Amino acid sequence: MTNESIEDRTGLEILDRAACIELISATPIGRIAFVAAGSPVILPVNFRWVGDSIVFRTLEGDKLHAAAMNQAVAFEIDDWDATTNLGWSVVLKGVAHEVTNWAEAEELEQLGLVPWSSDIWRQKWVRVVPDEISGRRVV
Amino acid sequence: MTNESIEDRTGLEILDRAACIELISATPIGRIAFVAAGSPVILPVNFRWVGDSIVFRTLEGDKLHAAAMNQAVAFEIDDWDATTNLGWSVVLKGVAHEVTNWAEAEELEQLGLVPWSSDIWRQKWVRVVPDEISGRRVV
Repeated sequence: MTNESIEDRTGLEILDRAACIELISATPIGRIAFVAAGSPVILPVNFRWVGDSIVFRTLEGDKLHAAAMNQAVAFEIDDWDATTNLGWSVVLKGVAHEVTNWAEAEELEQLGLVPWSSDIWRQKWVRVVPDEISGRRVV
Repeated sequence: MTNESIEDRTGLEILDRAACIELISATPIGRIAFVAAGSPVILPVNFRWVGDSIVFRTLEGDKLHAAAMNQAVAFEIDDWDATTNLGWSVVLKGVAHEVTNWAEAEELEQLGLVPWSSDIWRQKWVRVVPDEISGRRVV
């Protein structure tokens, strides 16, 4: 433990908000967790960090769009060294909202975020403004 | 689309159970999602695939141990190419159970699964027997 690092009670290094956001900005893919019919669901999404929030695409009518809009979600990114299993993880918590403003959606279209789905007609933008950001590094 | 691959309705390739298990067996780190006080929680865990189930360590009294035992959980693994954002994801659903059988826990200790936490005295083993395994590949 150095002067620059803080550890949690289990010995993992705590990443401060600035370090978490630096990692979020540089990471293209995360996983979103939400509750559907009382059960946890987890899905990978490719996303961008725009205006202090997570934005990504989903499909109108899919499970994520049906269950997570205006609901609490958790969003996780991480990166690990395959040989040592050391790395870091950042988790955000917030509420998912569909971007319904046309101009805002139009602006997000300029991000160049390529959807995984080939179904381009039902694409919706979702924004998660984080209420909480936390990160840990395994060192 | 070849004869060997099946796509879902959004154009992603569906991985069959055997392909999913092959990926699970070869992946050291995943993310577990569960519901705590009505809200989704997501955490990375290093795990092993043993006896057709996910096993990992947690700490007695931590959020995962307190909220997820005997509850529905979702578990996700994935891998992505950093430049193309193409890759795969596998999701398991099941119920998390603490391994309370001493002999079974002892056997799991032999796996050489190194805990991230330095708090070795409260380590518990958790097993998730999947009710459902699904996988998708972005190609």
